[in-house]
Amino acid sequence: MAAAAPPPAPTPAATSLPETATHRHPVFTRIRLAVPSDVPHIHKMTYQMAVFERLTHLFATTESSLTSTLFSPDNKPFHSFTVFILEVSSNPFTDTHFDNDPFYKPVTKTVHLELPLDDPEKETFRNQLGNEVFVAGFVLFSPNYSTFLAKPGFYVEDLFVRECYRRKGFGRMLLSAVAKQL
Amino acid sequence: MAAAAPPPAPTPAATSLPETATHRHPVFTRIRLAVPSDVPHIHKMTYQMAVFERLTHLFATTESSLTSTLFSPDNKPFHSFTVFILEVSSNPFTDTHFDNDPFYKPVTKTVHLELPLDDPEKETFRNQLGNEVFVAGFVLFSPNYSTFLAKPGFYVEDLFVRECYRRKGFGRMLLSAVAKQL
Repeated sequence: MAAAAPPPAPTPAATSLPETATHRHPVFTRIRLAVPSDVPHIHKMTYQMAVFERLTHLFATTESSLTSTLFSPDNKPFHSFTVFILEVSSNPFTDTHFDNDPFYKPVTKTVHLELPLDDPEKETFRNQLGNEVFVAGFVLFSPNYSTFLAKPGFYVEDLFVRECYRRKGFGRMLLSAVAKQL
Repeated sequence: MAAAAPPPAPTPAATSLPETATHRHPVFTRIRLAVPSDVPHIHKMTYQMAVFERLTHLFATTESSLTSTLFSPDNKPFHSFTVFILEVSSNPFTDTHFDNDPFYKPVTKTVHLELPLDDPEKETFRNQLGNEVFVAGFVLFSPNYSTFLAKPGFYVEDLFVRECYRRKGFGRMLLSAVAKQL
């Protein structure tokens, strides 16, 4: 009697799920310098930060006070306090509004998430300049200096990622963008 | 018998020591922006701070690294990290080296001390530009920003008064000079 044919080798596909099966929701992200038209979003995120920290009784910021202080002509990015904005989109970024910024070339990155994003406040945080682009967070930092190292650095004053975008590495992306300026 | 003449009224001088008797050692102080020729003094004070903080193993500053980072052309005083120098003298300040600083007019103040100052390191900290002028301390500060108040401020990174000048209000004078820039 002839020996039974050996069982077929397992197909590679059966040993593990392909990457695209577990992380099939691409999110396009962009980090760029804040501009005056971001002020309504910065204002709302700052208030959400005050809510998170239970410090709304200390919150005295208005859109107009933010505009006049964050964007005064003396404020050269990276040489005084500076704000980076994190934007997300389910489409690649096609707008070029920020590509010619003389101080900072925007950084884009595609992140693959396991679950689709659901932003309950997307209309509030829609960036009017982009196509389906939403503001997801910001970081505010200032130059500092170590006399022990004779080395300039940055002090991160505020780091904020909106609630529905947390635990996805976006805060780390904002901090990395700051660190890369050193 | 005629009544005895009343005793003479006590002279006002007898009721208390005049101010000049207890505080008869005037010290003339000046706070001004640091200039590159201050670097050897800043370097030595920074090292003394590291000794005080028991952190000399982290001290990696040289005069040349301080010069290139503290006084780069991009560093506009008050818009990036900034150093104020405190000088003292037993004579009024007569030099005019710093009077035309476009960013900061030096502030002088006379302080009356109970005891004369004895600076064991006066030759090390002598300012060559002045007449019997000695560097006594410094403060290094950077712009920061409160998003809750939409208000720029300063973060004081280092405040140092040399040992023989401590407990005389000089640290407070340096902090006040920073606060007055807000």
